Amino acid sequence: MINDLPKIVPVILSGGSGTRLWPVSRPERPKQLLPLTADETMLQLTMKRIKGFSAASIGRPIVVASAAHASIIHEQITVSGLEDYLVLLEPFGRNTAPAIALAAFEAQASDAMLVMPSDHTIADLPAFHEAIARALPLVAEGWLVTFGITPDAPETGYGYIKMGEICGDMIHEVVRFVEKPNADRAAEMLAEGNHAWNAGIFMFRADAYLAALGRHQPAILAAVKASLAAAERNGVQIVPDPQAFAVCPSDSVDYAVMEREARVACVPVNMGWSDVGSWDSLHSVSIRDMDNNAVRGEAILLGARNCLINSDGPRVTLVDVDNLIVVISQGEVMILRRGESQKVRKVTEAIKAAAMAAE
Amino acid sequence: MINDLPKIVPVILSGGSGTRLWPVSRPERPKQLLPLTADETMLQLTMKRIKGFSAASIGRPIVVASAAHASIIHEQITVSGLEDYLVLLEPFGRNTAPAIALAAFEAQASDAMLVMPSDHTIADLPAFHEAIARALPLVAEGWLVTFGITPDAPETGYGYIKMGEICGDMIHEVVRFVEKPNADRAAEMLAEGNHAWNAGIFMFRADAYLAALGRHQPAILAAVKASLAAAERNGVQIVPDPQAFAVCPSDSVDYAVMEREARVACVPVNMGWSDVGSWDSLHSVSIRDMDNNAVRGEAILLGARNCLINSDGPRVTLVDVDNLIVVISQGEVMILRRGESQKVRKVTEAIKAAAMAAE
Repeated sequence: MINDLPKIVPVILSGGSGTRLWPVSRPERPKQLLPLTADETMLQLTMKRIKGFSAASIGRPIVVASAAHASIIHEQITVSGLEDYLVLLEPFGRNTAPAIALAAFEAQASDAMLVMPSDHTIADLPAFHEAIARALPLVAEGWLVTFGITPDAPETGYGYIKMGEICGDMIHEVVRFVEKPNADRAAEMLAEGNHAWNAGIFMFRADAYLAALGRHQPAILAAVKASLAAAERNGVQIVPDPQAFAVCPSDSVDYAVMEREARVACVPVNMGWSDVGSWDSLHSVSIRDMDNNAVRGEAILLGARNCLINSDGPRVTLVDVDNLIVVISQGEVMILRRGESQKVRKVTEAIKAAAMAAE
Repeated sequence: MINDLPKIVPVILSGGSGTRLWPVSRPERPKQLLPLTADETMLQLTMKRIKGFSAASIGRPIVVASAAHASIIHEQITVSGLEDYLVLLEPFGRNTAPAIALAAFEAQASDAMLVMPSDHTIADLPAFHEAIARALPLVAEGWLVTFGITPDAPETGYGYIKMGEICGDMIHEVVRFVEKPNADRAAEMLAEGNHAWNAGIFMFRADAYLAALGRHQPAILAAVKASLAAAERNGVQIVPDPQAFAVCPSDSVDYAVMEREARVACVPVNMGWSDVGSWDSLHSVSIRDMDNNAVRGEAILLGARNCLINSDGPRVTLVDVDNLIVVISQGEVMILRRGESQKVRKVTEAIKAAAMAAE
């Protein structure tokens, strides 16, 4: 059967194990495996993100995840109704370049891999789909494409992409990738206007990616290839050989490939994207009541404004308070001033230090 | 054996079932049965309040409590090391005048009953003991004595006692009892200076009290007497006959007796007293750290000031917040602005209304 449409394979990276959303997010159950923004987990939402896209056929999605999360990942995917999928279980994390390479070897029969982190939200899916459609011709020509978020604030928490000449339908060549800037530099880039946030969302042909990886990081390519040759395959699950994978260098796709190739393009897109990198940003992307409160769990609110409540069980009562983030999870209660959620790192550090002192 | 010292019987009233300290205080476990201010419960602390008093011998303490709390009361008393005590279990509450009458019949062999609510705190016990010693001569003469707290603020939450002529060692005749005043009236009384707060702490001879009760509320006296005549006595426990007690009128000792008698005296005393009638007042009477935080339970504080934490289990983390009351109890988490703890009543009303609507 001949199908004129190109075939896109969604590749979902579930490698994160951050602690920025402590106490909900923990190493054994990181952010992407939690229902933070909706009734479904962020992984489940990501797996549905390409649904309804009509300019291509959608191939079997590939999830690259930590072996430690195998059973919960299978459970979440099957609960969400998906039967035809593939999970690549990394015995240990080696950053994004090897993770994407694992998927690329399994996606060689497709026309494009759409690489997406599993722990972001995108509010405007039509805008995302439209950007994908515009990028497909460049991908077909072998370009490595990144989706850059049109910035609306001088964020210092993201990397930036400087865009140059037009090379496609509202698509620009990438001039350079910029590390997370300081506030002054971020403001400059916002004013210049030809910069986008690096969201870690990519699209390219599997062979184009593997060829580029071979040019710049042949050791990664070789280790990934060897680990797959000796992989343990079992139904929808592939476990690369740990010994072969152990020698793989650790590197990000940005450093290993995107920054070093010539034909790299950026599709600027404004699609209500968030990396939900903090409790404050979860408040921003959540549905809120008339008093700007975002509530998950049972709550009694008597004069509460601008608050986030996220409880895994206990009922929360707020009386005459504002701008609080209240998180209750697994026997921990955290209350912090809104706008200060980057300090969650200090909390986890304090807990780690106390635990070490107690040993 | 002859003992020259008068004998005082402590009478502890455990009738309260308030909800002002929700979610910790509940009808099944009211404030006095909780370790709110120390490792011991307020009842346990009250039972020890006369310990070390040397100007009298101390008789077997009598606790008047709700039958619903029988087992927990016995447990708390025995845990605190007391074996010789008496518990009078009311089948239902009839306010303080009948409760004290029950105790008076059982304390007739003593020289004085020292009546104390079970849910107050007194920080300066020597001052309390000194006031008791000064009051003993008047009590011996048949006076009804109340201990009035020297006011330090125009409180509208307490009743006041207007004091007149001196009738003993720094003791005044009571001119009148004043209901909870409005703010203006409270300020006036504070300025006048001859007023004290009515703390509900009394001392009198059992026969003097029963005689006064017979003069003003003979129906209470008769019902209490009948309920004791038919009481079920079992070791340290007495259960007045429910049928006989049921016809007892409900009245407070203030209304039924103190306001109507002529020989009523007030001992003004400054002894670090609090009725711990709200989360705010619990914060005031608690031991606090350098940042004015009062903490019971495990907590991580990163920039917390002027907060109260009271947790029955979950660890509480506060980051960059001030003036919060955080209470975690029995699966409920309440967070309210300090100074607004009278609004707890609104919370319990909202819960009651929601429960009724759900029926």
